[in-house]
Amino acid sequence: MSQSLSQPLSQPLSQSLPKSLFAVGIMTGTSLDGVDVALVKLEGKGADITCQLLHFYSQPLEDDLRHKITQACDLGQSNVALICTLNAELGLLYADAVDALLVEVEALKRAGAQSLQEFSGKLDFIASHGQTIYHLPRSQSATHQLTPSTLQIGDPSMLAYRFATDVYFNFRMMDVIAGGDGAPLVPMTEWLLYRSATANRLLQNIGGIGNVTILPKEADIEDLWAFDTGPGNMMINEAMQQLYQKSYDHNGEIARQGELIEPLWQQLCQHPYLAENPPKSTGREQFGARFTQALLQQYLPPQNCAYSPADIIHTLTRFTAFSIADSYRRFVFPAIDIDEVIVGGGGAYNSALLRYLQAELPDQQILTGEDLGLSSDAKEAIAFALLGYLTREKLAGNVPRATGARESLVLGQLCPNPFPKREK
Amino acid sequence: MSQSLSQPLSQPLSQSLPKSLFAVGIMTGTSLDGVDVALVKLEGKGADITCQLLHFYSQPLEDDLRHKITQACDLGQSNVALICTLNAELGLLYADAVDALLVEVEALKRAGAQSLQEFSGKLDFIASHGQTIYHLPRSQSATHQLTPSTLQIGDPSMLAYRFATDVYFNFRMMDVIAGGDGAPLVPMTEWLLYRSATANRLLQNIGGIGNVTILPKEADIEDLWAFDTGPGNMMINEAMQQLYQKSYDHNGEIARQGELIEPLWQQLCQHPYLAENPPKSTGREQFGARFTQALLQQYLPPQNCAYSPADIIHTLTRFTAFSIADSYRRFVFPAIDIDEVIVGGGGAYNSALLRYLQAELPDQQILTGEDLGLSSDAKEAIAFALLGYLTREKLAGNVPRATGARESLVLGQLCPNPFPKREK
Repeated sequence: MSQSLSQPLSQPLSQSLPKSLFAVGIMTGTSLDGVDVALVKLEGKGADITCQLLHFYSQPLEDDLRHKITQACDLGQSNVALICTLNAELGLLYADAVDALLVEVEALKRAGAQSLQEFSGKLDFIASHGQTIYHLPRSQSATHQLTPSTLQIGDPSMLAYRFATDVYFNFRMMDVIAGGDGAPLVPMTEWLLYRSATANRLLQNIGGIGNVTILPKEADIEDLWAFDTGPGNMMINEAMQQLYQKSYDHNGEIARQGELIEPLWQQLCQHPYLAENPPKSTGREQFGARFTQALLQQYLPPQNCAYSPADIIHTLTRFTAFSIADSYRRFVFPAIDIDEVIVGGGGAYNSALLRYLQAELPDQQILTGEDLGLSSDAKEAIAFALLGYLTREKLAGNVPRATGARESLVLGQLCPNPFPKREK
Repeated sequence: MSQSLSQPLSQPLSQSLPKSLFAVGIMTGTSLDGVDVALVKLEGKGADITCQLLHFYSQPLEDDLRHKITQACDLGQSNVALICTLNAELGLLYADAVDALLVEVEALKRAGAQSLQEFSGKLDFIASHGQTIYHLPRSQSATHQLTPSTLQIGDPSMLAYRFATDVYFNFRMMDVIAGGDGAPLVPMTEWLLYRSATANRLLQNIGGIGNVTILPKEADIEDLWAFDTGPGNMMINEAMQQLYQKSYDHNGEIARQGELIEPLWQQLCQHPYLAENPPKSTGREQFGARFTQALLQQYLPPQNCAYSPADIIHTLTRFTAFSIADSYRRFVFPAIDIDEVIVGGGGAYNSALLRYLQAELPDQQILTGEDLGLSSDAKEAIAFALLGYLTREKLAGNVPRATGARESLVLGQLCPNPFPKREK
């Protein structure tokens, strides 16, 4: 799995090319699935950096630790002792995950893996997102009259100590300080990895919520824009849980078995979020469990015996595809001709959803990260390796049009390699 | 107020001397008095760094914020939202304190203050201790079966953003990761500032607890040792609170009015801590409120009508001086001839205590930081400016013999100046 910028060098390199950098990116998301760890090779400089994924490892979270994180996020159950020790425990967990990654890499290297031969085992740096346990940016803190803030824990000291390397971390706070939401931070890395010299691209992420980044060909970072398209997997997953006791519709198999419920479809297409002008963002408040459960009650027995559970999943999946395409037709296509739509996130693994989306968008090519030789699983861990690189080079990491910050800033903090220079 | 190392350059300078650095050190201690901010000028290199205090400013904590910090430290009252917002609020407080310092500096400079003329107003870096809200190093975590950890909050992003400079912070965690207590961190800076080519020195700090650092003349950092001598102001202050509703004995005025209570004196001199061999440390458990209140009950009415409150304060002050001198006689003087004792901390402002200590130590010269041209108030803020310098230079900041860490390490983390390099 290798990925390079397809764009030719847009600016002359002022200095000779530096040596390749080997770095690890670490991501632990709010879904609490596990620790994602990506070893990457970085070449080039500044905006012309290229990033090759060498190996990806995902370590599941133990129940005990997942429980502690859930407690630490909870107003009623959290306390200072828990947060203090969990901060150190997560640092240890990350170090163990990187250890496990490097053990696999070493074995692959010994087995002759070509792409790993150049890697000595020494990391140039690590970049770690940490675990968000609270997030109260400007847009949400105002109503609570609180100082805008965000809290990612998982102290980087153990990583720096065990691997004798620099560790970049805490990427969201500086954007929050500058009046931004501290999120999303992926647009900058999407620009670095996905911008094209020849194609106008949309990067459609389908997580719980759907969001799109618009990447015009030969885009400067200032040309980027992004907004939430509406529901991602949120409604489908909630209905799967209620109707099938499963957390998601594996590869869209249930959706394919059902038929469209016309009145539900009509009702969903009236959702006011669709007509709202960007910039806009949405969440569980509008498309979450409460909203979905009300629909299930309305269209299933005992209220209504005309439709099957599969019809519900089919219609919600169709609507999710529609809401994405509809947002393009309303807000994107009038401004720019789009050649390619690259789908990422969990929704990229739902082939029914992708087929419905393709049907909605006959003139665009629907691709996944894998079609471009990129890993959808590793995307976020790779993104943080790149954000670490930007911090290391004193380059801005946020996109003010995406986060709402007043300005472009160097993000993140550094825990330096703790082993002293010998002379003193 | 200017301070320089009295020792001649012990190692040849390998490179030409770098330019002077202007830095701010920030300290907020567990006493929650306020934010101490010191502007210093650093010259020289590595161990031969010299540090001149240019200006010191102390900003009292508002009651509201002090209350929030107290809540954040409390197991029953703390929660993740409080810790998340307080982390940002303290960052803002530190930035406001540095602002206030720089306004005073600018006024003094305009008024012609000679030592400030070279300072342009631009800081080379800031170093901030942060507010400790929990501390559970190896020595204390073992009994709780918890991962060793320590938590200082007060996010550095606002400082870095407002002053467009690098900010060093979170100095204790790396030592804890390496098996140390993360404290005390002052010995390294004491060595940098106070070691002498001609005198064997003791640095006696008299805070709540008394602790001493032994600095042999021409000491290498490995020659340092340190231990807690016993009570500092803790017993005196507790008795002052109980008997006079005052937080301390101003300049020892009450102590001077009383007389020695012989049986109390005899009883205190039997305290088992005195005979314990170093390394040793003590705290509220041994000399705190409970211990002191029991003594008051024993020697004052209605139990006992022979003595006055002033006699109690006198005897406790005499015992505090005795416990310090006794620890030297038992553990220090047999190993090294001491020329000077330099007293710092709040106890340095109790002239009765200093007089009793001088009487106990007729062969040593008792000095305060002020006698050496150093500020006792600013000592800790200066210490963290120096620790920030060490991190910046990738030099070790901890003294393993003092903290119990496995090795000497670069301490601290860096929030870089967030304003990007222009080229990209």
